[in-house]
Amino acid sequence: MNKPSNIADQYLSIWNESDAATRRTLIAAAFTADADYVDPVMKSAGHDGIDAMIAAARSQFAGFRFNVLGTPDGHNDVVRFSWSLAVPGDSPIACGTDVAVVASDGRLRSVTGFLDTVPASA
Amino acid sequence: MNKPSNIADQYLSIWNESDAATRRTLIAAAFTADADYVDPVMKSAGHDGIDAMIAAARSQFAGFRFNVLGTPDGHNDVVRFSWSLAVPGDSPIACGTDVAVVASDGRLRSVTGFLDTVPASA
Repeated sequence: MNKPSNIADQYLSIWNESDAATRRTLIAAAFTADADYVDPVMKSAGHDGIDAMIAAARSQFAGFRFNVLGTPDGHNDVVRFSWSLAVPGDSPIACGTDVAVVASDGRLRSVTGFLDTVPASA
Repeated sequence: MNKPSNIADQYLSIWNESDAATRRTLIAAAFTADADYVDPVMKSAGHDGIDAMIAAARSQFAGFRFNVLGTPDGHNDVVRFSWSLAVPGDSPIACGTDVAVVASDGRLRSVTGFLDTVPASA
């Protein structure tokens, strides 16, 4: 398995990617074809579904970026990392922790997200 | 799904149960037959495997108890809760966070544990 910090960086770079075609390529490289994602407010599956979900979230939070918080960790086939969502230079409007399962080919086959601090107005 | 706090309490009560027969009954009530458990130092599956793992951990940490830390949360079929491990009255020697998947019958079908603070001498 790649280092948890590398997986977290790769994963969040997808959410931060503004170019739709590049983002799609990154999704195919980072997720298995049957990957699924679920958090308290979003759910998706497959490259198309994950792509559409991230595009919608990027529209909702235009100008925001995800950053890794703390030190990602992992064991066996799971990784855990925390993140913040902020307009660069501003305080985060949300922080969360995601747990991902890594397939044998190194790609993510599931991501389960939790919110640690919730945006007040989202 | 039961409330995340109820699930966390039920789950940790198994780890804290000193009577082997009672613990086995609680395991069958709380876990599906094919449930699995994995954390950085332990792994098990099925009622027998989970029972043996918890018994071994209880031997290693005799006199210690698990307590819920903070407020368990959850969404969809997942719950997350943090815990501490301490001799009652002493400072915790370890804290962690577990993510569990709840089956349609309300029992746990997987638990993935992470260590937040690691025992120095374990």
